[in-house]
Amino acid sequence: MNDNFLRACRREPVDVTPVWFMRQAGRYMAEYRAIRARHTLLDICRRPDLAAEVTLQPVERLEVDAAILFSDLLLPLEPMGIPFDFVKNEGPVIERPVRAAEDVSRLRRCDPREALPHVLATIRLVRHELDGRVPLIGFAGAPFTLASYAVEGGASRSYARTKALMYGEPAVWHDLCDTLAAVVSEYLLAQVEAGVQAVQLFDSWVGALCVRDYHEFALPHTTRILRAVQASGVPVIHFGTGTATLLEAMAAAGGDVVGVDWRIPLDEAWERIGADKAVQGNLDPTLLLGPIDRLLAGADRVLRQAAGRPGHIFNLGHGILPETPVEHVQALAQFVHARSA
Amino acid sequence: MNDNFLRACRREPVDVTPVWFMRQAGRYMAEYRAIRARHTLLDICRRPDLAAEVTLQPVERLEVDAAILFSDLLLPLEPMGIPFDFVKNEGPVIERPVRAAEDVSRLRRCDPREALPHVLATIRLVRHELDGRVPLIGFAGAPFTLASYAVEGGASRSYARTKALMYGEPAVWHDLCDTLAAVVSEYLLAQVEAGVQAVQLFDSWVGALCVRDYHEFALPHTTRILRAVQASGVPVIHFGTGTATLLEAMAAAGGDVVGVDWRIPLDEAWERIGADKAVQGNLDPTLLLGPIDRLLAGADRVLRQAAGRPGHIFNLGHGILPETPVEHVQALAQFVHARSA
Repeated sequence: MNDNFLRACRREPVDVTPVWFMRQAGRYMAEYRAIRARHTLLDICRRPDLAAEVTLQPVERLEVDAAILFSDLLLPLEPMGIPFDFVKNEGPVIERPVRAAEDVSRLRRCDPREALPHVLATIRLVRHELDGRVPLIGFAGAPFTLASYAVEGGASRSYARTKALMYGEPAVWHDLCDTLAAVVSEYLLAQVEAGVQAVQLFDSWVGALCVRDYHEFALPHTTRILRAVQASGVPVIHFGTGTATLLEAMAAAGGDVVGVDWRIPLDEAWERIGADKAVQGNLDPTLLLGPIDRLLAGADRVLRQAAGRPGHIFNLGHGILPETPVEHVQALAQFVHARSA
Repeated sequence: MNDNFLRACRREPVDVTPVWFMRQAGRYMAEYRAIRARHTLLDICRRPDLAAEVTLQPVERLEVDAAILFSDLLLPLEPMGIPFDFVKNEGPVIERPVRAAEDVSRLRRCDPREALPHVLATIRLVRHELDGRVPLIGFAGAPFTLASYAVEGGASRSYARTKALMYGEPAVWHDLCDTLAAVVSEYLLAQVEAGVQAVQLFDSWVGALCVRDYHEFALPHTTRILRAVQASGVPVIHFGTGTATLLEAMAAAGGDVVGVDWRIPLDEAWERIGADKAVQGNLDPTLLLGPIDRLLAGADRVLRQAAGRPGHIFNLGHGILPETPVEHVQALAQFVHARSA
């Protein structure tokens, strides 16, 4: 088995820098679009045969060192009592947003083993089909990011309602995040039991908080999840965007690897995070839309910024964009391996 | 005249910390909503009587130390040949986005004195009605931010098309920004001639760039504008959001004051910016949606982080949100004055 990814998570020496990509299964790939033409996103998430097929597509097509479960961050919300749907050009839409104490008290602390058995079946199927070629990463959303969808009713720019709840009714906020943390912890542990070999906690939108608010409103809940999953023995990646001023706090929250975006040079990021953690990142995903020489020059810089100690997993600073040419992703993965060999 | 704002821009001692708010004229205020009920945003921008009235509303209602011209960042695009409109719940929509060399070569380097005379008339009217009570700030968008609207066709999360143009056709990108910089420079100089006493350059979305890209794709064009306006003698504020890793570069680009958002503590920001510039900011605007004690505690922290040298202008880290209670804005302005006296 190619264990470079798991070795890098543990800051052990590797023969080449491992690489995988957030949203490596997605609309930029013709194989994925062919399936999406016949099924909705949620259908794919709910059918293990389709979710497994989509999870494996980038492993067949790209030289990646890990597969990541195909799923959606919001899946646990539905069995908790927060149904949602994806509306074309709008993204996720939550029918009844969580805005008040009554909404929070109504939430169910569901057992993900019963509520999301299809996700666990997908994991077993993918592990079987991967047959040890590369490790499989599981994932879930962190409480702040999940709460922001639940409170706003979808995506947001200002997180106005989310922060108004945080500031105005901190007890309700903490109750909401406590419930989310309980479900997410169990969800990730269930993924580990089903076979994922590492886990990424996505706090994608946490960069909207200042560090003080991060400590008060996000960190305690995130720490609880990170500790629970780390106790299971698999490496945990803790990821967010726009986190240049939060990296020390995110590292303090826990996890083995901190994932960073392109807004901060990776060497500066690692210095803030500390040498006792691995790092993941951090090429700007829009570089994949430009010419290949600029793309590879950018990748080379990321590799050089991370050189000198083990513990770098190459990735983008955020997910692959739908308009990305697949050949560029292939060339990038190859380059990372060749250049770091 | 209350010249605390202008004195702080020049890092001269003041008796109280001056305060104004981005979007201090806007939907959070009943007086503004009464006018917007009968006129579109663009109508108000184009009618000096209405634009002046709206500009003055917060000066009547709040204890602010400056007025800011009521206008929209995108106004100069229309006479350049990039018409747009505001669509409910969607924000600005540009009919024919700028995507290729032909689109850029078709742009007009209009003279804002001829193309936007209503803006200049508004300035004269506001100056007359202010009668020296507080200074009037003019503004315009910086090339990166304006180009992002022109290229994306509206607001964006990923700036995928903008960056694809930047990376893929840098000559076209620079040509576009060169044209924008020429028009914006003249536009701001015309505002100064008409009577604004300071100017803010909004590079609101520049935080999407890493520092290397900032230097290559944004800084040269921004510098050109900042230099041209500084030569006119009025103080210039250079503002962006999500700029924690760009502050040194933004300071190097020019301007007298750097405006920062809440994602970085103001003392850390000022250290990055350098003691030879004034700073503006940086309370999270969503704090205005919560309880007043938390709001004022946040304002107190900002004041303490900026204490010790002259050159702090109190502001939010971004514009006032529409759902903000006007009483909280009043209380905040009063608190800043009382606490810093």
